[in-house]
Amino acid sequence: MSVYDSRLQQLRQAMQQAGIDIYVILSSDPHLSEYLPEYYQARAWLSGFTGSAGSLVITADFAGLWTDSRYWVQAQQDLAGTAFILMPWGDPQTPDMLEWVAQTAQAGQVIGIDSQVMPQSQFAQWQNMAQAHQLSIQGQWDLMTSIWVDRPALPQAPIYVHEPPFALRDVKQNIQLVRQAMAEQQVQSHLLSSLDDVAWLLNLRGQDVQYNPVFLAHVLFTEEAVTLFVDMAKVSAKVAQHLYQHQVDVQPYTYLAQALAALPEHSRLLVDPNTVTAGVLQHAAQTQWVFAPNPSTGIKACKTPAELEHVRQVMAYDGAALCAFFAWFEDTVKQRPIAETEIHEQITAARAQQPHFVSPSFGTIAAFGANAAMPHYQATEQAHDMITGNGLLLIDSGGQYLGGTTDITRVVPVGTPTPEQKRDYTLVLKGMIALSQAVFAKGVTGQQLDVIARMPLWQAGVDFGHGTGHGVGYFMNVHEGPQSISWRRRADATPVPMQPGMITSNEPGLYRAQQWGIRIENLIACVEKEQNDFGHFYAFESLTLCPIDVRCIETTLLNSAEIDWLNAYHKQVYERLKPLVSGSALQWLEQNTQPLATTNCSN
Amino acid sequence: MSVYDSRLQQLRQAMQQAGIDIYVILSSDPHLSEYLPEYYQARAWLSGFTGSAGSLVITADFAGLWTDSRYWVQAQQDLAGTAFILMPWGDPQTPDMLEWVAQTAQAGQVIGIDSQVMPQSQFAQWQNMAQAHQLSIQGQWDLMTSIWVDRPALPQAPIYVHEPPFALRDVKQNIQLVRQAMAEQQVQSHLLSSLDDVAWLLNLRGQDVQYNPVFLAHVLFTEEAVTLFVDMAKVSAKVAQHLYQHQVDVQPYTYLAQALAALPEHSRLLVDPNTVTAGVLQHAAQTQWVFAPNPSTGIKACKTPAELEHVRQVMAYDGAALCAFFAWFEDTVKQRPIAETEIHEQITAARAQQPHFVSPSFGTIAAFGANAAMPHYQATEQAHDMITGNGLLLIDSGGQYLGGTTDITRVVPVGTPTPEQKRDYTLVLKGMIALSQAVFAKGVTGQQLDVIARMPLWQAGVDFGHGTGHGVGYFMNVHEGPQSISWRRRADATPVPMQPGMITSNEPGLYRAQQWGIRIENLIACVEKEQNDFGHFYAFESLTLCPIDVRCIETTLLNSAEIDWLNAYHKQVYERLKPLVSGSALQWLEQNTQPLATTNCSN
Repeated sequence: MSVYDSRLQQLRQAMQQAGIDIYVILSSDPHLSEYLPEYYQARAWLSGFTGSAGSLVITADFAGLWTDSRYWVQAQQDLAGTAFILMPWGDPQTPDMLEWVAQTAQAGQVIGIDSQVMPQSQFAQWQNMAQAHQLSIQGQWDLMTSIWVDRPALPQAPIYVHEPPFALRDVKQNIQLVRQAMAEQQVQSHLLSSLDDVAWLLNLRGQDVQYNPVFLAHVLFTEEAVTLFVDMAKVSAKVAQHLYQHQVDVQPYTYLAQALAALPEHSRLLVDPNTVTAGVLQHAAQTQWVFAPNPSTGIKACKTPAELEHVRQVMAYDGAALCAFFAWFEDTVKQRPIAETEIHEQITAARAQQPHFVSPSFGTIAAFGANAAMPHYQATEQAHDMITGNGLLLIDSGGQYLGGTTDITRVVPVGTPTPEQKRDYTLVLKGMIALSQAVFAKGVTGQQLDVIARMPLWQAGVDFGHGTGHGVGYFMNVHEGPQSISWRRRADATPVPMQPGMITSNEPGLYRAQQWGIRIENLIACVEKEQNDFGHFYAFESLTLCPIDVRCIETTLLNSAEIDWLNAYHKQVYERLKPLVSGSALQWLEQNTQPLATTNCSN
Repeated sequence: MSVYDSRLQQLRQAMQQAGIDIYVILSSDPHLSEYLPEYYQARAWLSGFTGSAGSLVITADFAGLWTDSRYWVQAQQDLAGTAFILMPWGDPQTPDMLEWVAQTAQAGQVIGIDSQVMPQSQFAQWQNMAQAHQLSIQGQWDLMTSIWVDRPALPQAPIYVHEPPFALRDVKQNIQLVRQAMAEQQVQSHLLSSLDDVAWLLNLRGQDVQYNPVFLAHVLFTEEAVTLFVDMAKVSAKVAQHLYQHQVDVQPYTYLAQALAALPEHSRLLVDPNTVTAGVLQHAAQTQWVFAPNPSTGIKACKTPAELEHVRQVMAYDGAALCAFFAWFEDTVKQRPIAETEIHEQITAARAQQPHFVSPSFGTIAAFGANAAMPHYQATEQAHDMITGNGLLLIDSGGQYLGGTTDITRVVPVGTPTPEQKRDYTLVLKGMIALSQAVFAKGVTGQQLDVIARMPLWQAGVDFGHGTGHGVGYFMNVHEGPQSISWRRRADATPVPMQPGMITSNEPGLYRAQQWGIRIENLIACVEKEQNDFGHFYAFESLTLCPIDVRCIETTLLNSAEIDWLNAYHKQVYERLKPLVSGSALQWLEQNTQPLATTNCSN
């Protein structure tokens, strides 16, 4: 029996002993982070599915993994030969976890959920469902502790101060802005659990999770004080000094429960029910909960002109690194097969040459041929392909720099691309260009702009299962809201208008299972366009600086406006990167920024 | 003093006697119809503003008219020289009526509203506002009756049966479908006040209001019966027979109040709070109100293939009439000036030649030159311009036929168009073509598709203040939801996905105050495109058949895909209309459907 099935067996024993009929395991932590400390990666440990998103529901005779379309193909492979079955979340025929439990559970059964890692908003839905079906919820403990004997410890990496010239916001002012919003909501206190908000508020960064420069902590605003709850071992004298100077108190991470319990009865506590967990919030049961998005999230998302200036500089560094990488790649792949895993090493090494580089901003996706049909494929030492022969190579990578966060996807042909591959590539490029050129009235949302990027694909009868764009932080999380560019939105999600300063990805794609995958991604910033009698208009500035491969373009599918955009983009890339590269990298840059000839533009 | 100011003075006296400080007058009736019986046109009678939308708030020292951007220019003119001032509704600086009252009223003051003509949803907002500001609402009576001595009577026009082959739905089945939805909502009764729903449900049509073939009536579904509440004088023996045959009871219009009061206490009553008025609903105060859209609205909106077939035929008739009209116009305008008002007569006369024509579907908008900058300008005998010299003529017109409802806008140049006019015209055309060619995934809404039509205008820094598209009925209202194509939506409005069978207008525009106005409008039907591994895709079929003037096109602004669309459209128009026209009409059709040469498509 596989190691995962035996772990499943142990869990079922633990469930039996605890009197739990249905056990829910989320990919989540008390801060609802996207990248989890190993300690919280129970789902991967139990099921062997290593995707970044996925949850489990376990009963005596069922073990299901719910994950979204990005991971359907990968999950099939990871779960093969285990008792776990894939529940393709988002597929119209498949109930979501809550619906499935509602349909399957018998009245009187007990559902086990670790409420410490479930958002309050979601927990409330489970409570309503449980009540409607005469089920009870046991939200107190985490069964994994009993069976996961070699469970990793919580991270201990030191916190550091994000300093000028890269840190461009004043902590006192950040706090002031949040307090203003608190006053407007007439609340006496506010709990912040989301790690990017905590780090942004205090100009601090950490290393508790891979890729995101954050650290495990909560911040509690009361009328008297702003208190950071964090593992004291991570707080250096310098950080303590920085906090003291900005009148921020520090208390041990575990003291939060008492602090919440000590809030005045019936006082109003502002929390974002999507970023605070039910387990944390129940310590403040005596207060009146005021549910609203964290004020800091909206403020943080609109980068200041000074921050954008740093990001533009970082994009040039990042582009220079990519020139060096691609020069190496094009030269090497002619001589020998390259392992997909080597791409991450090489691209990270190239970025490491650049000033103020900190780390990758996520695990490089280097997927060759059919592997790229899995939008979030991760090559591993155990399982990866060699890049050789004919095929498309998709590389999605990014870097954390003190002056900004990057995220870029490019596709390059190895050998000779087929006409079908060129057609698909060009359709994706048309969508990406359409969004790059979008101009829109103030108030338009990403849910509305998404159709601009998808229209060329839809008109060809194809589509892609992920969003077109996600928000990106400033030396912070590579996925950072509140904005996104995606026409499908949860009914409960309030639409977020695009605002100047927001940095969002522009990454349409096209994936043919077992064949190839294509995605082209730039980061774009929302900028002021003009204000006149007809209204107030915004546009996008393309921030990413790296050539877009033209060998896969079917030119006759581009109209002259699209060719003009591509040529202007490549001209800018050349001018901005030329001073930063030399030798083979410069040669590669020159070769790959040549203007494309305007054709008879047959459409 | 103007007649309107003296009426205002009388109203203020009536307010004083009734102890009302703030009086609200809506453009509305007990059925919340778009086109009002004269009896309910108090706002126009009082203020002199004749636009189709606008409401008044009157206090002792304030008289404000709220109307949307379509009417800002016209309202300025209509209100000139009166005590009424324009409150440009939708302008970010202008509070809406409710906000204005909330800001202005003194605690203890009394607000007068005729709740018989205010939607329940809106009345609830006013009640909340009043409570929050210690105001009271007097919702019982209509002060106008006391001062409007020569107020017209309610209409008495006979009802008639919409018969096969044009009526394609079975009344029993319509009722069955509504009862199914009632069962799903677990309600015992359902009140229908919207006139298009009532007429559709029963395959009946009327003539109570201009342009819309509806009649004043309510329908009440109870567990036992379906009852039509209508002025008995309108019910012929034939109509009575038709209703009897489908087991629909008939009672006098005024008996609805008792019928509602007789519903079982605490029984569940389904009503759409946006189409039932507070004054009507309060008669059912003892029931439990279940608020949801009328089931019939969604069913009615998705035309059946058989209905669409009739609509296509009607579009050919309508196009043939327009060929005859434009042939007359082009010939006549060379010889003499034409009054804007003559356009309505001529175009209606041309339609009247066609089979199964019933009436115009709205008052023709024939606006020359600067008049067209008012999107809903209406030329009158008293005030209209002569069409002569140089200028753009905008004609927005439509017809009611037994087999469908049409709505079309075309712009033709008189004399020589300027380069600026051609540029504006071409931008609007690009937006109209972009939406015509849209393909989209199942689930996409009109709020999202709107950006497709606006993008070419936004990219040029221009926009228009109205929606891009409204739903259209089947021999019914020319404005008929639930779908619309408009990115701006009220926060409370639930987005409506486009569905096959829905007929919507596609009418982007561009208006330059004091200069010219442009709008190009076709009706489009949502149709199945394809279903494959990537998803389920819908597209639009252009239903309207009439040449689009090419003399105003700046060809270099069109790409070849747009020129191809225009040429294919004109080819289809020619083939479909050729058999129906002859003589000068045929000549005009031939001249105006010639293919446009593909240029070097400079964009």
